[in-house]
Amino acid sequence: MRRRALLAAGFAASAAPAAGAAVPCFEPRGTGDLMVIVERARGALVVAESTHCTVVGRIEGLGDLSHASMVFSRDGRFAFVFGRDGGLSKVDLLEQRIVARIVQAGNAIGGAISNDGRIIAVANYDPGGVRLFDANSLSPLFEVPAIGADGTRSKVVGLVDTADGGFAFSLYEAGEIWLLERPDGTRAQLTKFAGVGSLPYDGNVTPDGRFYLAGLFGEDGLVLVDLWHPEAGPRRILDGYGRGQVPLPVYKMPHLEGWAAAGANLFLPAVGRHEVLVVDRKHWQEVARIPLLGQPVFVVVRPDGREAWVSFAPPHNGTVQVLDLEHLTVAETLAPGRAILHLEFAPRGDQLWLSARDDDRVLVIEPRSRRLLAALPADKPSGIFSTARAHRIGS
Amino acid sequence: MRRRALLAAGFAASAAPAAGAAVPCFEPRGTGDLMVIVERARGALVVAESTHCTVVGRIEGLGDLSHASMVFSRDGRFAFVFGRDGGLSKVDLLEQRIVARIVQAGNAIGGAISNDGRIIAVANYDPGGVRLFDANSLSPLFEVPAIGADGTRSKVVGLVDTADGGFAFSLYEAGEIWLLERPDGTRAQLTKFAGVGSLPYDGNVTPDGRFYLAGLFGEDGLVLVDLWHPEAGPRRILDGYGRGQVPLPVYKMPHLEGWAAAGANLFLPAVGRHEVLVVDRKHWQEVARIPLLGQPVFVVVRPDGREAWVSFAPPHNGTVQVLDLEHLTVAETLAPGRAILHLEFAPRGDQLWLSARDDDRVLVIEPRSRRLLAALPADKPSGIFSTARAHRIGS
Repeated sequence: MRRRALLAAGFAASAAPAAGAAVPCFEPRGTGDLMVIVERARGALVVAESTHCTVVGRIEGLGDLSHASMVFSRDGRFAFVFGRDGGLSKVDLLEQRIVARIVQAGNAIGGAISNDGRIIAVANYDPGGVRLFDANSLSPLFEVPAIGADGTRSKVVGLVDTADGGFAFSLYEAGEIWLLERPDGTRAQLTKFAGVGSLPYDGNVTPDGRFYLAGLFGEDGLVLVDLWHPEAGPRRILDGYGRGQVPLPVYKMPHLEGWAAAGANLFLPAVGRHEVLVVDRKHWQEVARIPLLGQPVFVVVRPDGREAWVSFAPPHNGTVQVLDLEHLTVAETLAPGRAILHLEFAPRGDQLWLSARDDDRVLVIEPRSRRLLAALPADKPSGIFSTARAHRIGS
Repeated sequence: MRRRALLAAGFAASAAPAAGAAVPCFEPRGTGDLMVIVERARGALVVAESTHCTVVGRIEGLGDLSHASMVFSRDGRFAFVFGRDGGLSKVDLLEQRIVARIVQAGNAIGGAISNDGRIIAVANYDPGGVRLFDANSLSPLFEVPAIGADGTRSKVVGLVDTADGGFAFSLYEAGEIWLLERPDGTRAQLTKFAGVGSLPYDGNVTPDGRFYLAGLFGEDGLVLVDLWHPEAGPRRILDGYGRGQVPLPVYKMPHLEGWAAAGANLFLPAVGRHEVLVVDRKHWQEVARIPLLGQPVFVVVRPDGREAWVSFAPPHNGTVQVLDLEHLTVAETLAPGRAILHLEFAPRGDQLWLSARDDDRVLVIEPRSRRLLAALPADKPSGIFSTARAHRIGS
């Protein structure tokens, strides 16, 4: 968005500032087509848009953005950026400025926004726990220290918002899953599931918000909680899928993000294996495995569910593979750029945005023809986030 | 959004207009939380927002808005409004003004926007066919006259965008389904399925855009096309569900809108019956029927898939029923207002907006507690449309 600063001498409306004051004057623009790109080394964000595939502006001064992620206000105007250094920044994407910024912990790993948009929750490694903030002001509301049944404090991972207005998350060292309901301070309620498995390393909910699923790093399986029936307790699934059998070094932890249904299946990157696991989400059993050329990091389903795109850990991170989700095969192997760190579809699936870190650019591809639509300059880009995430449960 | 008109005497930026010109100055606002309400009798739209549940402004002069619907540009700034009188209006929701308006047919029934946001398609009754327009300028691109295999011209119904950038629609009198691929004028391709059944009255696609489903008014069943495999041709489903057996007068045609998956099911209002049909969308067979107190018009699934809300034809249009989609039962019967014409969820499901026409207001309800959050004034409100529809296939 272009921004014009102008000096105004006369005003027709009484709400206007005093004559002679500098009035920033904005050309109106919608927020639905914004794509926000993390420039990790520089500590900046690039604001781009998918209507014409152009860069709108840049916001600097966001601290350590390695492994940074963000969520959006319901109007799509504000991004809440979670930095690895514990920084929590509220950024105005229209005015392209930082509205508020705090360093709320020593080390953090992402966060979530409540279903009604009023509360920001951050997953902290140090000190381990979840801190909650008012989305309007970033003023602190309260903290949930992640002290497990064994009395020790854990790192928190896999923090997501749930459809009922609460949050779900996992305790890494303690091996627990906690549900925080009614997180408005006075009526908050915690439900704790201990002993869910060894070292849950990430978690997410299904797109409808019903099932919370955590991957285990210390065991060969995953754990599932039905949020419609938390009283039924956690359930182990996919035991013995191979995580523990194969001594492959894990170059980069896969992300349990981007899973989605194609028909009745979920697609999960397997830890330490060159495979995507295909899981029937009615019976939670393995349906198939799709062999890949390396260790998958992100498996991102095209919005129509017909294909998924997979990125890889080094040394295969210059490659992406396109999966045919109807036939459960690899449809195509592409080499779009150097160090592909993240992939994000435009919400209706007509564009796929990929960050090619070592090419210092973001590629926009038409996902059916694989045609390059645009290449945008960005300084060591990593995560890409569409403001359409504002409208999703568990995003 | 407040709008300030100011007279500016000096400008810092060269892109600014000439000194002394009136510069409309906008306070920036996002577009992701906008809800657009049709005031049918008045020919106007109310622009409201769901962050604070307030009215932002009103746009007048849109002609006959009975049975009006709209789609949104990918940035959420512009609404394309389809009037029953053949009017097609492009409305700027931020500036709250009509940007362009044409009367493109004598009688029309809704439209769609292509996956990439570039093309608007309108379903026309008179003259029967589909007309396509450039979304930027509303300049006409081309027309597809709906002349069926029998040589007569049909009304077009059930027009939707498909995930591959095209459109699908049905010919009412001819009983055909047509697919329009690559609708950019030069490479456009039509695939026609004749003899699909008698009098298809509405159609829609599943949320992933894969299956196009049309309801039949002249026969006892529905017809389905798998858009991943159009070569397989149309398929009849739910034959003999009861449409033809029971001589109930049909007070208002149900809408095949708002169907969504709760697990693996679709929920369809049955024509002329006091039932919702529950259909397994893997095998396309009837799983159950949920008895209702009247003839359903809209069945709208809460975004988390756990409940659906149903509105009714007269004389039951002051009632809504809440369905429990896990147990396939009626959870609650409510009487929220007089003449409930439409229901729209906020995209993450924390609010349900209902138009109570004869109360001249729109109700905002917290769908879990059923608590009234707000009541907004509106003049005989009918349809309510969230800008989050911009991000959905087939919306």
